[in-house]
Amino acid sequence: MSLIEDLNWRHAVKAYDSTKKVSQENIDKIVEAARLAPTSSGLQPFKLIVVKNQDVKEKLVSGSLNPECMRDCSHVLIFAAWDRYTEKRIDDIYDLTTDERGLERGRFSSYTNMIKEIYLKQTAEENHAHIARQTYIALGMALAQAAELKIDSTPVEGFNNAVVDEVLNLNELGLKSVSLMYVGYSDEQNDWLKNMKKVRNPKSDFVIEI
Amino acid sequence: MSLIEDLNWRHAVKAYDSTKKVSQENIDKIVEAARLAPTSSGLQPFKLIVVKNQDVKEKLVSGSLNPECMRDCSHVLIFAAWDRYTEKRIDDIYDLTTDERGLERGRFSSYTNMIKEIYLKQTAEENHAHIARQTYIALGMALAQAAELKIDSTPVEGFNNAVVDEVLNLNELGLKSVSLMYVGYSDEQNDWLKNMKKVRNPKSDFVIEI
Repeated sequence: MSLIEDLNWRHAVKAYDSTKKVSQENIDKIVEAARLAPTSSGLQPFKLIVVKNQDVKEKLVSGSLNPECMRDCSHVLIFAAWDRYTEKRIDDIYDLTTDERGLERGRFSSYTNMIKEIYLKQTAEENHAHIARQTYIALGMALAQAAELKIDSTPVEGFNNAVVDEVLNLNELGLKSVSLMYVGYSDEQNDWLKNMKKVRNPKSDFVIEI
Repeated sequence: MSLIEDLNWRHAVKAYDSTKKVSQENIDKIVEAARLAPTSSGLQPFKLIVVKNQDVKEKLVSGSLNPECMRDCSHVLIFAAWDRYTEKRIDDIYDLTTDERGLERGRFSSYTNMIKEIYLKQTAEENHAHIARQTYIALGMALAQAAELKIDSTPVEGFNNAVVDEVLNLNELGLKSVSLMYVGYSDEQNDWLKNMKKVRNPKSDFVIEI
């Protein structure tokens, strides 16, 4: 199957079959697609929290606008973005990069000095707004990977961030929840969207070619 | 090739071969992957501007931090987000959705009333911040599609939005540029990143499993 076929296949599942679980091997592939996503300046400013523990999912239910999906899905993924950029966070990823490439540390210092000059003068809120955007690329990759594996999923923004951050102790990690992704298998009796046509703006409205 | 192989294959190209152009058929596939990307509440709040005209690309060069890439790539894609949500924009996409599904218009009005209640009370800046995030999902899909086709690309944030918006008359369309994507074929002599190892935080740092 091509990516386009996979994207046509997927939909935002509205009800999950709680009896069907996704294998660890397939969860690992979804995580890997998110890990490989590009990010601004290669900073990878987020972590992915993967919750399969039912007790923890129950605690997350009160922060969820679709509690049945949270309860019944196999795994919930939480895209958790850095609360802000710091000098150490930027240096750590560039030190990893130079080490892995067999280059001397500091090789990219003119570039990292430039981005520090920009980011470290901004407020934490301005930093986080930029960081949060990056997580959506990875969300897209994870959704595409689930579809390639014919695993159902739902991208989710509507939730109570404070509840999710508290249940997962994200503040202590310097992280803030941005989006969720339910992963599992559709409950075909109750997933009302499953058999509805996928609708997108027609190409003639979507694209402007110059 | 699997998505993971494609994501390992791609890199952010740093120099393009100006003599090699991407076929219209392949551009259409990249556009289609972006069009199929999910968006919050299905609102698809953006357009994709595809520029192959060299004169227009030259006008965009002054807004670009990597002018050679802008000049030498085959096509530049501009992800241009709605400046804000409006009642008409929300109604138009839901009218399209119900029409395409053979449902009566207004079928989803309890839902659309809820999202209007949220978005129409926000400032344009708050709206746009939410809208801009959605375009990153589509950027990810377009990058993945280019990789599947073994077409090189570069995701780009660092550019002068005011220049890009003015050259493309985006304000008149109620749009604002968010990100760019260069598409083409790497100039292997000058693309310094091409043969460097792709580095990501190791899975043990990236994921927290609960």
